[in-house]
Amino acid sequence: MNLILLRPDEIGEDGRVTVAGPRAHHIVSVLRVEVGQPLRVGVLDGSTGIGLVEAAADGQVTLRCRFDGVAPPRPPVDLLLALPRPKVLARLWAPLAALGVGHIMLTNAERVERPYFDSHVLEPARVEAWIIEGLQQARDTRVPVVSVHRRFKVLVEDELDRLSSASVRLLAHPGAGTSIREAVPKVEDLRVLLAVGPEGGWNDYERQLLVDHGFHPVTMGPRVLRTDTASVALITLVYDALAHAS
Amino acid sequence: MNLILLRPDEIGEDGRVTVAGPRAHHIVSVLRVEVGQPLRVGVLDGSTGIGLVEAAADGQVTLRCRFDGVAPPRPPVDLLLALPRPKVLARLWAPLAALGVGHIMLTNAERVERPYFDSHVLEPARVEAWIIEGLQQARDTRVPVVSVHRRFKVLVEDELDRLSSASVRLLAHPGAGTSIREAVPKVEDLRVLLAVGPEGGWNDYERQLLVDHGFHPVTMGPRVLRTDTASVALITLVYDALAHAS
Repeated sequence: MNLILLRPDEIGEDGRVTVAGPRAHHIVSVLRVEVGQPLRVGVLDGSTGIGLVEAAADGQVTLRCRFDGVAPPRPPVDLLLALPRPKVLARLWAPLAALGVGHIMLTNAERVERPYFDSHVLEPARVEAWIIEGLQQARDTRVPVVSVHRRFKVLVEDELDRLSSASVRLLAHPGAGTSIREAVPKVEDLRVLLAVGPEGGWNDYERQLLVDHGFHPVTMGPRVLRTDTASVALITLVYDALAHAS
Repeated sequence: MNLILLRPDEIGEDGRVTVAGPRAHHIVSVLRVEVGQPLRVGVLDGSTGIGLVEAAADGQVTLRCRFDGVAPPRPPVDLLLALPRPKVLARLWAPLAALGVGHIMLTNAERVERPYFDSHVLEPARVEAWIIEGLQQARDTRVPVVSVHRRFKVLVEDELDRLSSASVRLLAHPGAGTSIREAVPKVEDLRVLLAVGPEGGWNDYERQLLVDHGFHPVTMGPRVLRTDTASVALITLVYDALAHAS
């Protein structure tokens, strides 16, 4: 936890916040912060600042906060991800939030198994907890938008233009294709939407539908990576391309 | 499992192999392979090939293998990693093997807690199982060399030159520094040794010792990532730089 994230409704008018539970435990037991010390704080989807520890006792920590940092910009990368199996998705929420994703769209595909949609790793409260863990790690406050889409065709044909304003659409595909750095134009302030398929890949129909809707196939080489490793690697390469685009 | 890895001593002179346990289960229940079908196979640290399923019953699968592929090249990236906490390291073995690392050196540092060295996630049999999982995912056969170093100074000053022949040494450091793509010279057939610090970073002494021994600081930007996410991201960027170096 490199930043303590707070909900707007937790913060009093005088900037005082009292937290309990995991955050209080972390402040006392891991960060070993004492009264009078400053901590990095942030408001969910808002600005960052500093919180002075006023009290720490009985599993509660009271901070006096000033939020004078600007809110971080919304991450310029959106992700269209074929719903991974629950074990993999559980591992992926925090890294996605830490790397920075504006909108996470989880979609059906032929090679996605139906029971995945009923998994507890899609429960909003659990998703939020993992996402906050990732944001606190990366010192970000911007909560990714998460949406779940059971109908791939409807998503791609009818909803995608509204859900993501990205001007560059990339389709990760093992094997042939250009590299991400070649596929991202050297233009400032781009948004990129990255599509990552299921284990086993998109089927031909799905891939063609994505290509027909502006997705450009990109590759990372011959190695086949698990969805969580591949997602981290691909998002890293998109950010690297954006950083070198200006 | 995109490749079934076999130990040399499992393979008969006629190319026949009978496997049981997780591999047999995977072949039957996940790949749903039937008698007569071909499977990708590989020999640990050796060549790849095709195995025809001759029999599958009673939790055992017999393959008749021909290994006519060349052995994959040893991965051109070595990793010097401050020993992460056990939960993180457990998650990291398979992705490291899947991404491709030649030598994984785990080292002590001021911010590494001593009990980590006694963790079960360093037990050779468990490490090997995770590594094989990653190699089978990525269709590689090259088992990373793993070594554990409790004395950071001795490792850097006396052992590193012998353990890694990498001509480029990079030191991941949040904040200032050049990008990896700028730090990797555009020369073919390079080997890169990447150093990744503990949560909380190397201390000043450790960082200076690495710099004094040829490590060039590189950065991925302002986000602070967990060791496992950071390692995947950094190795990805090293491979991307190597792929664009020629």
